[in-house]
Order: sequence, then C-alpha cells, then structure tokens
Amino acid sequence: MKSKLQRLILLMCLSSAIASAQSDSAMIKKIFNEALTNGKSYSNLDYLTNKIGGRLSGSPQAQLAVEWAFKAMKDAGADTVYLQECMVPHWVRGEKETAKVTGSGSKKFKEVPICALGGSIATPAEGITAQVIEVKSFEELKKLGKENVTGKIIFFNLPMDPTQIETFNAYSAAVALRWAGALEAAKYGAVGAVVRSCTLAQDDNPHTGVMGYNDSVTKIPACAISTNGANWLSENLKTDKNLNFYFKMSCQTLPDEKSYNVVGELRGTVKAKEYIVVGGHLDSWDTGKGANDDGSGVVQCIEVLRIYKALGIKPKFNIRAVAFMNEENGGRGGKKYAELAKLNDEKHIAAIESDAGSFTPMGFSSDAPPAVKAKLKSWRPLFEPYGIYNFDRDGGGSDIEPLKKSGVPLIELMPDSQRYFDYHHTPIDVFENVNKRELELGGAAMAALIWMISQYGM
Amino acid sequence: MKSKLQRLILLMCLSSAIASAQSDSAMIKKIFNEALTNGKSYSNLDYLTNKIGGRLSGSPQAQLAVEWAFKAMKDAGADTVYLQECMVPHWVRGEKETAKVTGSGSKKFKEVPICALGGSIATPAEGITAQVIEVKSFEELKKLGKENVTGKIIFFNLPMDPTQIETFNAYSAAVALRWAGALEAAKYGAVGAVVRSCTLAQDDNPHTGVMGYNDSVTKIPACAISTNGANWLSENLKTDKNLNFYFKMSCQTLPDEKSYNVVGELRGTVKAKEYIVVGGHLDSWDTGKGANDDGSGVVQCIEVLRIYKALGIKPKFNIRAVAFMNEENGGRGGKKYAELAKLNDEKHIAAIESDAGSFTPMGFSSDAPPAVKAKLKSWRPLFEPYGIYNFDRDGGGSDIEPLKKSGVPLIELMPDSQRYFDYHHTPIDVFENVNKRELELGGAAMAALIWMISQYGM
Repeated sequence: MKSKLQRLILLMCLSSAIASAQSDSAMIKKIFNEALTNGKSYSNLDYLTNKIGGRLSGSPQAQLAVEWAFKAMKDAGADTVYLQECMVPHWVRGEKETAKVTGSGSKKFKEVPICALGGSIATPAEGITAQVIEVKSFEELKKLGKENVTGKIIFFNLPMDPTQIETFNAYSAAVALRWAGALEAAKYGAVGAVVRSCTLAQDDNPHTGVMGYNDSVTKIPACAISTNGANWLSENLKTDKNLNFYFKMSCQTLPDEKSYNVVGELRGTVKAKEYIVVGGHLDSWDTGKGANDDGSGVVQCIEVLRIYKALGIKPKFNIRAVAFMNEENGGRGGKKYAELAKLNDEKHIAAIESDAGSFTPMGFSSDAPPAVKAKLKSWRPLFEPYGIYNFDRDGGGSDIEPLKKSGVPLIELMPDSQRYFDYHHTPIDVFENVNKRELELGGAAMAALIWMISQYGM
Repeated sequence: MKSKLQRLILLMCLSSAIASAQSDSAMIKKIFNEALTNGKSYSNLDYLTNKIGGRLSGSPQAQLAVEWAFKAMKDAGADTVYLQECMVPHWVRGEKETAKVTGSGSKKFKEVPICALGGSIATPAEGITAQVIEVKSFEELKKLGKENVTGKIIFFNLPMDPTQIETFNAYSAAVALRWAGALEAAKYGAVGAVVRSCTLAQDDNPHTGVMGYNDSVTKIPACAISTNGANWLSENLKTDKNLNFYFKMSCQTLPDEKSYNVVGELRGTVKAKEYIVVGGHLDSWDTGKGANDDGSGVVQCIEVLRIYKALGIKPKFNIRAVAFMNEENGGRGGKKYAELAKLNDEKHIAAIESDAGSFTPMGFSSDAPPAVKAKLKSWRPLFEPYGIYNFDRDGGGSDIEPLKKSGVPLIELMPDSQRYFDYHHTPIDVFENVNKRELELGGAAMAALIWMISQYGM
C-alpha cells in the first residue's frame, strides 16, 4: 500500500501531466488557428510557382528561387537568414522531346508523349529509331540476353501497383526501372530506354525524374512515356512484335553550377547550439512548376517560422527552416547541410521534412530508435483532432537523410498520398493543383510537432 | 484459479476471435483490391456527370439519371432492381442571373457573380434595385428593425469559420443564413436577400442551395453571391453606406413532378426481410454536374453491389443500394424510402450514406446508441491499414435520417472534408474535380463496413 506522501506525489505528477497536456493542446490549437486564419504559405507558393516557375538545379529559376526564399524567410520573421553554398549538377532539357511508334511497312504510326529522364544524354540530332521490345523487369531483360537486346530500344512497362493504399509504396517498387533502366538495358547492347511513367493515373502526361549512368557502361538515351502511351504501345506489341520506336531529345549535362541552401533561424531561449530543423526542397523538375514537389514543403517550412513569430512563441531550441537545393538530381544540398552541421558541431534534436505533397496531413513517419518513435506516438492524442492519426510508418526525407549517421531522429510529414503521383514530375504539378487549406494544415502540423519536441525533447 | 476446462474454453474463444479477425482482414483486403483494380465507380461517374449532367429534381436530366441508375445497378449484378415512386418539387432556374452594385451618383459600379437560391421566387422581370445593408446574423437584423430594413436588400455576410478542421462544422454554422435569410429579412420588410456563398474558398463561384419560405411571411427573392463578390461589397460598404444592389432572376416553382428512388438488391443467404442499406442521392443542383454532391455517393453504392458480386461474397443479410431522389430540395426520396420500409415491415440492420464528397475516406460517423457506436469503433483496427481512423463523430446522412425513428443505426462515410465546399453547389462540381482512387477507396470502405455488419450484426 502506498504511503500518503507517495499518493500525494503521484497525484501531483498526474495533475501536472494533465495540465501540460491541456496547455499543449491549447498551444496546438493556437498554431492551427493562426495557419488557417493568417496563413501565408498559399500566397508564397503562388509566387514561387507562378512568378518563378520550375527551378531545376543550376537554372536561372533556381537562382531566383534562392533569392526569393531568402526574402520570404526574412519576411516571415526569421532572426537570421543565410545561404549555404554547394555545387550542383546542371542538366538542361533542350527542345521539347518527340517520339512516335511506327510499324513494319508503315502499318502503325502514332505520336506518343515522352520526356527525357533527368540526366539522360541526348539522342543523335536526327533522333534514334529501333525495334522496341517490352519488358516488365530486369529479370526479363536478363532472360532476353544480348542476342535479343542488341540494337533495340527497351520499353520498361511495369505499372505501379494500384492495390497499395499508400501510393509511395507503389512508387518505390516501380522507380527502380526509371533509375537504372538505361544502365541495365545498355549492358545487353540496347540503344535506348523508354520507361513507363511512375504514376497510377492513366493520362497523357509523361513523368520525368532522375536516372543514373555508370562510367563503365555505354550511356544510352532514356525517356519516360505517358501511361496512355505505354498502354497503347503494349497493346499493339501484342499483335505486332516488329514495331519500331523513334525518339529525339537534345538534353545535355553542363558543368556543375554554384547554388545554395537557404537557411532561416529563430533563436531558442535556452539551447545555444541545439537545433530542430524543418525543411523542404527548393529545386524542382522543369516540366511543371514544382508546386507539390516541393514548393509546398518549402512554403510550409517558412510558415513554421512565421507562425512562431506571429504567436510570439519562444522555443527552447533554435528552430531552423531550410530550403534545400538539388534534391531532385543529386541531393547535394542535403549533403552539404549535414557536412556543415558536423563541421560546426551543431546538435540536432530532430529533423523534419515535408516532401510528399501539399495534401491533407494524416501522420508523421519516422526513422529513429524505438524509444523515439514511441515518444512521438505518445503525442498522437494531441494530433487526432486535426485528423493526424498515423505515427507508425517508417521513413524520413531524402534531404535530411545525411543527418542520420550523426544519430539525428528523422521525421517526415505524411500527407494523404492518393493524388501525389498524378502530378509528380509532370507539367501539371502547378499551383492550381494545391488546395489552400490542405497546404496550411501541413505547415501547422509541423509547427505543432516542433512545439512538442521543443517542450519535451526527442 | 481457473479450471483446465475454463482455460481450454478461453483459449478456444481467443483462437476463434483471432481467426475471425484474420479472415475479416483478408476479406477487407480483397474488397479494397477489387475496387482499386477493377473498379467501375469512376467510369460510372463519368457517364452520370458528363453524359447526363446536373439533375435537379423534376428535370429531364433527373429522369435520365433514374433510367441510368436502374441500368447501372443491373450491370453491377444486382439480383433485383426496382423504382420507388415519389412526387418531388420542381423548381427551375430560368435564365442566367445577373447582379450589380451601384453607388450613389453612379460612383460605384460592379457586376458581381450570383445565382438564385433553390426555391426562390423570381425578381420582377426588370430586376429589383434597392439600398443594400450588410448583416452577419439574425440578431443584427433584429436590432436594425423594420425602420431600417423596410424596402432594403439585406446582405447576409457571415464567412464560414476557417479554424474548424472539419469543414462541415463551419458549414453548419453558416448555412442557417442561406436557408432562412429571405424569410427573416422579409419579416422586417426587406425586398430581397443576398447571401454570402457557403464556402471557405475565395473565388467567383456563387454557391446555390435550398432556401425556405413560410406561407405567413411575404416571399422575397434570394440569391447567393460569390465570396469574392461578398468581400468586395463588404469592403465598399465600409466607405459608402448608400450602395444599391440590383439583381434579376427568372426562377420559378412548377407543379410537383413524379420521380423515383432507384433500389438495387443483393439477396442475403439467411435473413429474408433484413436489410443493410447503403445510399447516396441521385439528384443534384443544376449549376454544376453533381460530381461530388452526390454523383460520387451514388456510384460508390452501386460499386458496393458490383464488388460483392464480383468477389462472389454471399452476405447473410440482404444488401440494398439506393439512389435517393430529391435530397437537395425536399428530401422526398428519403421519406418515401422510410415510409415503404415501415409499410413492408422490413427490418433494417443499418443504414449507411455517402454524401460528403468523393475524397479519401477517413472515418465513419454514426447516429446510433452507445453500444452500437462502441461496436463500430471496435472494428477500427481492421480499417486503419486503409487510413480510416475516425469512428468517433456523430451524424448520419439526410436521406437515411427518416429511418431513425424506427431505431435504425445510421452511419455516414466521412471523407477528407477540406475540398468539399470548394465545389459544393457550384459550376465546378464536375468530374474533373474527382480523383479516381479517392472515389474508389470510399466505395471499398463502405463495402468493407457492410462485410463487418453482415458478419457480426450491428
């Protein structure tokens, strides 16, 4: 049986815990109210996407975006804003790509929508034509072998799995063909690679994205074909094995360019060199305007600063918003950030990323030790009133990933994923496909999480 | 201490419970896979919205929709499809409405986007012009009194509350002014009512919706004004109290028309006169195409039948999909359904409605006794893998509401609500604003819930 004193202490602890939960709940409500009432993320995204537009690393637009982010962080009330220099790849698309399928004896002819994959070499100036062969996997390619592949164009046609509820799971399974399709096909003598767009939508938008070469293997040009185009091609290959594919691309890789991460800080009240970092990436693919990938993440991070300033919240830890450069085709900004953090002996309490679209937030995934994951999940009741229930998934973000080796807990905002791959890396990743409230809720969710981390550590 | 026998029984019960949960989980997975792989709800919605279009009760389009739903339920594999006749109001909009704000001495002039509220009388043929007075509530109107209101047009300008996370909560608070604005203003001698559109979006789309009169009070015409229009008017009234409002509408109410609910049934294996009903409403407002309100609900209910048939699931109870008529401006279909259910001595185990848009499903609300709500919530772990977490909210659907007095548990699908009021009752409630996967997940969620009810009762 407990002594009176023990019971008294227990009671005091309990009261204190209830009072804390109430005051955390009240603060989180304030944060959401501020975002939904005075939010600036939507107008910021309007500027970034419509006045600057797509902003691939090394482009003039990427530089404009750096200058814009610097000013936007100042306007949001950051105590300090500065740049972190890094060298980035500079790939340019050149003229609009064209492609067509032609049959033996001109029985078939159809133009199909394609775009170069990021990093691809160009085709010869007159384009390239060869018999096209469909495979669904690298295993199929291997079975075909050099005798069947040499001189051909390989069409990688693995649809994303629609039965995955979380669309990122479906993406992970399909994207390997985009990344390594050209490399693997070239090993067997192929002269080009055409990869089915990574999306669950059936439409005419080709989805670009980064691909890779290997210096020991011949480089061949690689493009993405829209899902409608891929379906048409696959259907017609069933009755005519001798179809040819023609495509023409003038993309090229120029020398690396100087670019920057943009960092905005709110000074904490207690911990001089301890940081909670929240980031998104400023660069985007060039075919669209980088609204969901990842303009939305950047403006949400800037909004975190604005909310803290507007509400006069004094966090214990320094809060740092980072607009990372070059997530799409190199990850140089994320690497540079981690390198400097180590060099400057900074302690990161947690790193949070928003790079999964502007949609209604549904949870936070994490890449952290079990105890940290458990602590995160213990805060779930405070987030449920905002529709945020899922704290179970694993995963951080790619810009913050390089911090992992220093033991920093990584967290990623998990918005509803159903629409993400409709827009991802396409001409329709535009401002009009972002909903103001959904965007604002995401920023508020991260601000609220940072409040909890600032109060209780991680 | 328990006897060996007691322990054995406990163990058997436990094993059986685990086995059931596993087989339920497997069945729910099958249901979702079927919806996401072979789903027909999206192509059905394409037909309903793009080939038939907006379908207000009593219109030729509503009749076409009845015929279409009959065929669609047959195609989905219903064992029986039949119509339930009901008389419905027949209001027609007439020519496109026009409105402008004019200042004293023609200092101000601006055309503003309006539309007649459903059920409104017309203005005189030449339109109506009067000084416009802004209020935010019926209390303000009362304070103004007859001396300030007589002969004026009352502008009800209560914005929806953006800090409500669930947008339906914000709607509930604002919609009273739309429903009763004209009635209340007329009591004080007003000659017209202009109501701020019920939406959180700031744009040029006026939102129609039903309004009501009372035979003992003079009927005055009532319109909705877009939020941009309302903001402009309110801003300008601050500096010029003497602005006039002009509007012209030629809407009218014709005699009631004959129409129908469409009912499709799958016969249960065990319970002859016991039903689980799942419904949406077939009618829609006329300014758009009724995609989210509520074409999506109708095609999801038809999809439930298709999924059960395609998977060869034999439910214990009869499953009945209902495309209700006249939810928007009378609710006659819902009333008729409940009336016939009683007359025919049918037992309803549960009634489920989908009338909150085509968006990603996040939960089920219910209007049922605590024990039923608790049972519903106990199934939540089976739904969490599909992002469906919220079983706590109260509320059924308006078409199934008349079943409540017979004690039927009412349940409503709760999709993500952030975008719903962007489209609700506007020209942009169209097919293009529906995402295929989100729509399919909603139908699957209801099919999965029906599986659980069919297995364990309600």
